[in-house]
Amino acid sequence: MAVKLYQQQDSGNCYKVRLVLAHLGEDFEIVDINANDGSTRTAEYRAINPNGKVPLLAFDDGRTLAESNAIALYLAHGSRFLPDDPWRLAKVHEWLFFEQYSHEPAIAVRRSLAIYPERAAQATRERMDRLLAAGNQALEVMAATLADRDWLAPGGPTVADFCLYAYTHMAGEGGFDLNPFPPVERWLERVSSLPGHVELDWRPG
Amino acid sequence: MAVKLYQQQDSGNCYKVRLVLAHLGEDFEIVDINANDGSTRTAEYRAINPNGKVPLLAFDDGRTLAESNAIALYLAHGSRFLPDDPWRLAKVHEWLFFEQYSHEPAIAVRRSLAIYPERAAQATRERMDRLLAAGNQALEVMAATLADRDWLAPGGPTVADFCLYAYTHMAGEGGFDLNPFPPVERWLERVSSLPGHVELDWRPG
Repeated sequence: MAVKLYQQQDSGNCYKVRLVLAHLGEDFEIVDINANDGSTRTAEYRAINPNGKVPLLAFDDGRTLAESNAIALYLAHGSRFLPDDPWRLAKVHEWLFFEQYSHEPAIAVRRSLAIYPERAAQATRERMDRLLAAGNQALEVMAATLADRDWLAPGGPTVADFCLYAYTHMAGEGGFDLNPFPPVERWLERVSSLPGHVELDWRPG
Repeated sequence: MAVKLYQQQDSGNCYKVRLVLAHLGEDFEIVDINANDGSTRTAEYRAINPNGKVPLLAFDDGRTLAESNAIALYLAHGSRFLPDDPWRLAKVHEWLFFEQYSHEPAIAVRRSLAIYPERAAQATRERMDRLLAAGNQALEVMAATLADRDWLAPGGPTVADFCLYAYTHMAGEGGFDLNPFPPVERWLERVSSLPGHVELDWRPG
């Protein structure tokens, strides 16, 4: 079954999906679409993703799946990167929801406000300060777990590590300093040393 | 195995968990904790939930699980409210991540700013306008799916319906008008008519 990934290369949410696909060794085709210039908000794109966001996974039978972490869970289903055991699986889910509610809206959004010129006007001092505090709290939560074990969920590397790695490893671009969080720095190194790891700029084929 | 739910009764995120537990007919004990007065940010509470939020599920063997949607998925594992089929399961996940990223931060947050006096100072006109637009977009995405089928994920009611019901059914308290979204209104009625449904104020025992 041929699979297309609608994506923006420098989006961490899209990088998550490429990272999971690379680890699984699965073939896929990339369709580049710019999420900053309104291209994901056109009627044409909304016909395939009503929420107007990337990434989106599209199969040649017409099925589509949105939400980066839902895509990661679907792709990893039955693989060594997603536990069968209900409790270990619950811990993967816990990290993925943490990522979308407490981590991405601070760490990824602050990066986005810092690096995209078209967003600079929204980067008020008050907002940037608030995002810095929220992002540091998210990093503290990660560090508390990673002080005691090598991977976010118990038992070995899972999609939780890939999905949290994406924006954490770019946190510096958003003005975050990881030095106060040594367990997070060591974990980043551990994730990027896994066989099959790919960098942000990697593309298939 | 005895299970405790650390929760705040009028929080939709906590209501999700009670709703799932009620539908499953599972016994649990409630520990009330106020998320607005700083009680979830104390060192004592952070020792059991480092992210300082409710709900939190705690088992008598010391295990804990945070994140409302991760709790719902764990509780419903193996039940009729969570599909085994990987694609149907992926669609449940897609809605749950949509809820935490695109729905709750608009619809629940606007309600919170509107109803809790201690948050009133943060309810600036600009912020309330922005949240109204974002919440209406989330309702539009739901309506587009629910125009074609009875439940959010294909195949019957799932935890996706319970988790999205929680804050959607209180959207009026946040100043949202559901009249422009008849498929959402009909779906709310459908969810609340399921046998085993409980209201926001329900408590076990």
